[in-house]
Amino acid sequence: MLKKRKKLGRGVAVIGAGMSKFGMFRDKDSKDLFAEAFNETIASVDKGVDPNEIEALYLGNFSNDFFVRQAHWGAMISDLIGLAPKPATRTEGACASSALAFREGVFAIASGFYDMVLVGGVEEMSKSSSTEVAEGLALATVPYEGKVGFTFPGVFGVIATAYFAKYGASHRDLMNITIKSHKNAPFNPKSQIPFTVLELMHAKIESLKKKGRPVPEWKNEIDFLSDPGANPSIAWPMHLYDCCPISDGASCMLLVAEDLAKNFTDKPLSVAGIGQGSGRGFHAAPSLTSFEATKNAAEEAYNMSGFKPEDIQFSEVHDCFSIAEIIHTEDLGFFKPGEGFKVAEEGLTALNGPMPINTSGGLKSKGHPVGATGTSQLFEVWKQLRNEAGERQVKKNNLRIGAAHNLGGTGGTCTFTILERK
Amino acid sequence: MLKKRKKLGRGVAVIGAGMSKFGMFRDKDSKDLFAEAFNETIASVDKGVDPNEIEALYLGNFSNDFFVRQAHWGAMISDLIGLAPKPATRTEGACASSALAFREGVFAIASGFYDMVLVGGVEEMSKSSSTEVAEGLALATVPYEGKVGFTFPGVFGVIATAYFAKYGASHRDLMNITIKSHKNAPFNPKSQIPFTVLELMHAKIESLKKKGRPVPEWKNEIDFLSDPGANPSIAWPMHLYDCCPISDGASCMLLVAEDLAKNFTDKPLSVAGIGQGSGRGFHAAPSLTSFEATKNAAEEAYNMSGFKPEDIQFSEVHDCFSIAEIIHTEDLGFFKPGEGFKVAEEGLTALNGPMPINTSGGLKSKGHPVGATGTSQLFEVWKQLRNEAGERQVKKNNLRIGAAHNLGGTGGTCTFTILERK
Repeated sequence: MLKKRKKLGRGVAVIGAGMSKFGMFRDKDSKDLFAEAFNETIASVDKGVDPNEIEALYLGNFSNDFFVRQAHWGAMISDLIGLAPKPATRTEGACASSALAFREGVFAIASGFYDMVLVGGVEEMSKSSSTEVAEGLALATVPYEGKVGFTFPGVFGVIATAYFAKYGASHRDLMNITIKSHKNAPFNPKSQIPFTVLELMHAKIESLKKKGRPVPEWKNEIDFLSDPGANPSIAWPMHLYDCCPISDGASCMLLVAEDLAKNFTDKPLSVAGIGQGSGRGFHAAPSLTSFEATKNAAEEAYNMSGFKPEDIQFSEVHDCFSIAEIIHTEDLGFFKPGEGFKVAEEGLTALNGPMPINTSGGLKSKGHPVGATGTSQLFEVWKQLRNEAGERQVKKNNLRIGAAHNLGGTGGTCTFTILERK
Repeated sequence: MLKKRKKLGRGVAVIGAGMSKFGMFRDKDSKDLFAEAFNETIASVDKGVDPNEIEALYLGNFSNDFFVRQAHWGAMISDLIGLAPKPATRTEGACASSALAFREGVFAIASGFYDMVLVGGVEEMSKSSSTEVAEGLALATVPYEGKVGFTFPGVFGVIATAYFAKYGASHRDLMNITIKSHKNAPFNPKSQIPFTVLELMHAKIESLKKKGRPVPEWKNEIDFLSDPGANPSIAWPMHLYDCCPISDGASCMLLVAEDLAKNFTDKPLSVAGIGQGSGRGFHAAPSLTSFEATKNAAEEAYNMSGFKPEDIQFSEVHDCFSIAEIIHTEDLGFFKPGEGFKVAEEGLTALNGPMPINTSGGLKSKGHPVGATGTSQLFEVWKQLRNEAGERQVKKNNLRIGAAHNLGGTGGTCTFTILERK
């Protein structure tokens, strides 16, 4: 019965995108942050748009229920942006929540029911202590993990250990991922940590000097990251610099039916592929060094788009932990299994490399307000494909195909979304 | 730019439905309950179905995050039913969460991307104390309500007061809603409270006699419900029998592209109308005696289907509190504003009346596991339109159009769904 090729009955285009600055904001709540992202989205529409034409909202949020004791964020944000009484739906798939919102917005337009839909996400985490954040995130693990005491760094520590054992990688390979992503961070004005690892090392040296404390002889980033005084262990073999920060933020995108896009911009992006998958957690996963949900997501997106991994010119890849980027770039077909750990050191995934990964700086330096991450990754693809990424712009001839991979939980929900400039 | 008539590019049909028994189950968790609903759904497909053909899951859940400290239910249930690695998405719109799942399932098929999608919902509330449940549900109110101390009974008490003042209704009119809905309850094998109010009165008399306590002279249900000893005040003018119980449960439905439905059954139901709206809470609502979200949902569903209120032959209507049924039947156009409080006493909404409302017994007697309610209401429509509702079957000639209205929060999210037997 199943179709060989998954297609949408009606094309969908992105005509606007925006995101708040990511960071830890004591003085901003989820509504403030979403307003920032929304205002930027409306302003980004080249030929202008009347927000009253928006017909529905899809909003990703993981668990503001837990973090700030407020659920029902579809209705909350619908009120904020003046959408009510039109429909607003919250989607949740842990850290992939807003990639799901994007996908539902695409379906709602492709179905023929709506012409213009706002999609986005928000999360407000920094008002919780780091212990509370760990507890909150553990709600997204399957019960065989979280309820026996696994936190997220713990889970990814086990995954890293399994990967190291299978392929002979080491902690130094993780460091290269971090160094590569942080090199893009200073060029991203939305970044939570807009510094290279070298800059962070020099800042640490200055701070030690000021305090009159002894300064270790760090010659380069690897020296710095190898020093447990600077980069303490979190969950072996994961260290502090292998983990993304705790963040607040929001992001959104405006979608319209493709046949209407030219009314709003001469440079719309086409939704070429939308893939999603689910995974079963450790207790039943076929492998610890591969995510079945990512593989299903990639298969769906490549199938719909007709593209192959080698057609993707750059990609955001979910790097909640450095090991995650390595494994996902393999699962997405960008590199062969067991090869992903070598590519950062070789420069293949650098901004000027043949396959730039996480030009935004990645979750590690840009920040990871979990419900906002999915559409913030697509915001980066939007910026790059429109040649608006400033100093972090990918400089390739005929740049037209970019993608974003978003992971929820410990692999429970993954998405892969391909955008195309036609 | 906007279309005058909202239509789906591809029709969608319901080919199976199931639900768990609703109640308070110390020995069953959300997975046990969903398994019940899922197994019944698969078994309900007339010509049989291979569950491996299901391509995606949409699952409504309000806040198991809060109730049982577990989020990410899309992935949880995907694992349970053997769907992984295919996609699973959780939708949340407070007590309308699974009606949103149904709607997204419809869009996913109508878009052309999938042919067969499972939709449903689950909630596990009874392991929380009633104080915790009140606190959990308050997460769904807008902050101007919940955070200043309003609970759900409090909000609906205010709404009832405003309605009484505007139209001259009284608590006796609320009692008539309760009496009417409970009359259908004994005929619903899934019901949490499968008794009429008269049966509950007799049970109370027996219990008082056994304890050697004085028995009041209750001549009928109205006497019984007017006695604060039997029906204590909860949030004036709302009494205990105006409020639905705390429940656990799950429900689901199997959707396919309409052109494929005949492979699975000769009696598919067509999705004729799917409407949804959002509301702004008390601080900005245009009225306390009408729900703007319900009105938007009704408008969308009538628009899509081409039906008018008088075409709907019976409906489930969200009666978390008795006053809610009254107001919503007006907002949906079944009765004129200010008339809805009179119709139960006149028998118009009884099982054998001209416009049966809540033939399932309604949330009041069937139970209200919030995330499962939306698709459980549609389960009732399914049963009725297939002439499988047993002793609660609506006996009308040519019964072919039924609907379900689902409310989330204090009006933040509402849906109205119309199913048709062709």
